[in-house]
Amino acid sequence: MFEDRKELLKNLIQEDRKDEILGFLDRMYPIDIATVLEEFDDEYLYKFKSFIPIEQMAEIIEQAGEKFQIRFLKLLHYDEIVTFFAYMSNDDIADILGRLPIKIRKALLTMMKSGDTKQIQELLGYAEDSAGGIMTTEYIALKEDLSIADTLKKIKEIGPKTEVIETIYVLNRKKELVGIADLRDILIAPENQKLMDIMNENVVSVKPEEDQEIVAWLVSKYDLNAIPVVNHRNSLLGIVTVDDIIDVIVEEQTEDILRLGGVSKEERVDSSLFTSIRKRLPWLIINLGTAFLASFTVGLFEDVISQVVALAAAMPIVAGMGGNAGSQTLSLVIRSIALGEISLKKNWKLVFKEISLGVINGAFIGIFTGMILYMRYGNPYLGIIIFAAMIGNLVIAGFFGFLIPLILKVLRVDPALASSIFLTTATDVFGFFLFLGLAKMFLPYLL
Amino acid sequence: MFEDRKELLKNLIQEDRKDEILGFLDRMYPIDIATVLEEFDDEYLYKFKSFIPIEQMAEIIEQAGEKFQIRFLKLLHYDEIVTFFAYMSNDDIADILGRLPIKIRKALLTMMKSGDTKQIQELLGYAEDSAGGIMTTEYIALKEDLSIADTLKKIKEIGPKTEVIETIYVLNRKKELVGIADLRDILIAPENQKLMDIMNENVVSVKPEEDQEIVAWLVSKYDLNAIPVVNHRNSLLGIVTVDDIIDVIVEEQTEDILRLGGVSKEERVDSSLFTSIRKRLPWLIINLGTAFLASFTVGLFEDVISQVVALAAAMPIVAGMGGNAGSQTLSLVIRSIALGEISLKKNWKLVFKEISLGVINGAFIGIFTGMILYMRYGNPYLGIIIFAAMIGNLVIAGFFGFLIPLILKVLRVDPALASSIFLTTATDVFGFFLFLGLAKMFLPYLL
Repeated sequence: MFEDRKELLKNLIQEDRKDEILGFLDRMYPIDIATVLEEFDDEYLYKFKSFIPIEQMAEIIEQAGEKFQIRFLKLLHYDEIVTFFAYMSNDDIADILGRLPIKIRKALLTMMKSGDTKQIQELLGYAEDSAGGIMTTEYIALKEDLSIADTLKKIKEIGPKTEVIETIYVLNRKKELVGIADLRDILIAPENQKLMDIMNENVVSVKPEEDQEIVAWLVSKYDLNAIPVVNHRNSLLGIVTVDDIIDVIVEEQTEDILRLGGVSKEERVDSSLFTSIRKRLPWLIINLGTAFLASFTVGLFEDVISQVVALAAAMPIVAGMGGNAGSQTLSLVIRSIALGEISLKKNWKLVFKEISLGVINGAFIGIFTGMILYMRYGNPYLGIIIFAAMIGNLVIAGFFGFLIPLILKVLRVDPALASSIFLTTATDVFGFFLFLGLAKMFLPYLL
Repeated sequence: MFEDRKELLKNLIQEDRKDEILGFLDRMYPIDIATVLEEFDDEYLYKFKSFIPIEQMAEIIEQAGEKFQIRFLKLLHYDEIVTFFAYMSNDDIADILGRLPIKIRKALLTMMKSGDTKQIQELLGYAEDSAGGIMTTEYIALKEDLSIADTLKKIKEIGPKTEVIETIYVLNRKKELVGIADLRDILIAPENQKLMDIMNENVVSVKPEEDQEIVAWLVSKYDLNAIPVVNHRNSLLGIVTVDDIIDVIVEEQTEDILRLGGVSKEERVDSSLFTSIRKRLPWLIINLGTAFLASFTVGLFEDVISQVVALAAAMPIVAGMGGNAGSQTLSLVIRSIALGEISLKKNWKLVFKEISLGVINGAFIGIFTGMILYMRYGNPYLGIIIFAAMIGNLVIAGFFGFLIPLILKVLRVDPALASSIFLTTATDVFGFFLFLGLAKMFLPYLL
């Protein structure tokens, strides 16, 4: 399907069949066109561009991936880029400029219309993952004393150029955001009423420096189509629309899953081999430290192991189960933190539940393991020792699995990033120490 | 802040100050009111209900959590519930009914208006996580030959009762969905034009049985505010709105993270101790199987370990690093699958990259580990063996970390659920076998 489209479009371009190209594109979404174009080499891309109205090309580029946007713009002269930008929204332009070298960015900005330049430079000033960094400046804001009749006129005028039409932002004379008006209410209100009569004054808004994760959480909680961004004087700076919020949620989720697995959020399965080495090796080296700590712990008991070699065979069970139980607690807590459901201050008492769980699950798994080892090696004391060690290690797993992410959160370190390394260290080192330590204490019974 | 509101509202209820309660609620969002009410006991809740207009109460209940909805309805008589439902949308009613015992559900349905009953029963027929299960039947659908003037009249009429106003769904005479019209375009079109003149015929739609994850992916890809759900005859059945899509994305993500950590998607940090035991213990028991496999593998080499006890101390390093490297690959692949970026058929060649990565990262970590073990035990052969075993284990980790989730996907098993257990088995069993097997082969050099 995708390959068919790509080949078909390629042929049409090669044969200069402009009308057919335009007809073909008519039945496709800009995002799907962008996906096809990303596979083209520069020659085809440049030729394609020459067939397409600049407005349509701008729409396609707005939907394309970052890398492709930059690649495409590099095919153009500066003045062509500026013409191109005239058809794009200021927040998209700011995003693109933010990824260009400073020299080119400055050159382009000086060539653009001064009104846009100012707004774009303001947008460029916000961090990429803040409300200001993801907001758009295309919204409808009207004065509170505007009549419904005039409001409708204004909406017809501005509507086509704006991203959100179903919510109108209402400003007072000082240009402060004082309410929002729902287009539904505007449509049915008497024509002589004013916006202030029908607006809702309970406005959820954010400051431009607010983290995008918080912005997404608010939009999701209040089922908003867009959330206004205001400065400290309550002046409206822009809005963040729900489609960008979805991107934020997906991005933050990707980050969490990858970080939990010890991968950088920038890596993808199809990153180059070199990139993958550079991104993954450091994490493996950090983990090597943990592995050596575990190894040294075992090393302390080499004399015991040399006398009772069955201990070596039982070691992977102790470490493995501690790791598994700890992961369970860790996943739950990390997810609860991401959903804003839990904090150390409010919920620290839940650690006692995790400890109880460690005792009960540990006893269960411990009895089972103890019995099998008893049957295998014929020594009941080995079974009893692993039973006790299993309870101990699962308590440790629950205790640290619960507390580590919450403490990291308080320290403003991403729990998804660093929790697992501390947890593994805890369960491995304590787990081995407990198991082999008990074995050493009761060595005479094991021989 | 939250506690203040709760206490204030409690006092107002106790002192029967109805007007102040209503004034207080005026400044709060329904979702925030619901959060406060969830903390009330039944007595306060019932009294609160008696102060509030039924319409406002219905709005609050629509926003509340599932458990609270059921708890609240249990306070009401059947006829009260039916009156209550009259103020709620059919999809919310269907969701609530779906969670009630069949007897009560049937009793309520027979008491309701017959038109609603039919629609609700249809909604109840769809799986909870399908497009049909999350769609709403509140949308605006108009005939294609309707004039713009009449369209605007209709929108004013239906608009206030509908969830989405900025997109109008356009039907032909056979009631098939033939296009969508953007309210922006309707507002600026000449009054005598028809909907068919301005509608967009490229409609992205889904079938009611479509999985909610696919629905979310489409809405996110095409930046939609809502996606229409049509049957096989292309008749419009409902729409899924973007706010529900956000819930789906967050829910699916929670599921993925919890499953990767070996926890059921139904568990939360504050689930009861008994629930947590019931949910987590089965997973630990399954993992115990893996741990025993690893243990048996080690057991095969007990004679070697008893002669070179340093091997026992090095074991955690081999197993740990294999697990870490495998997790890296696994996280990347599982996330790429969730984002629809990768499939076994299209991307199987990437396994060679993972294998190369295993060789390179394994060599790096292996040299480092080998040198430290050489320094610690003074035997170069132990270092060489762990170097070779490390490369082997990281290749295994990359190979299985890449293929396991993709194969599970083909078999229609959730990769997030079962991948880690197979991967751990592979890295532990092969890892130990390789390391201890090499040690056995070169035993004379190690003594």
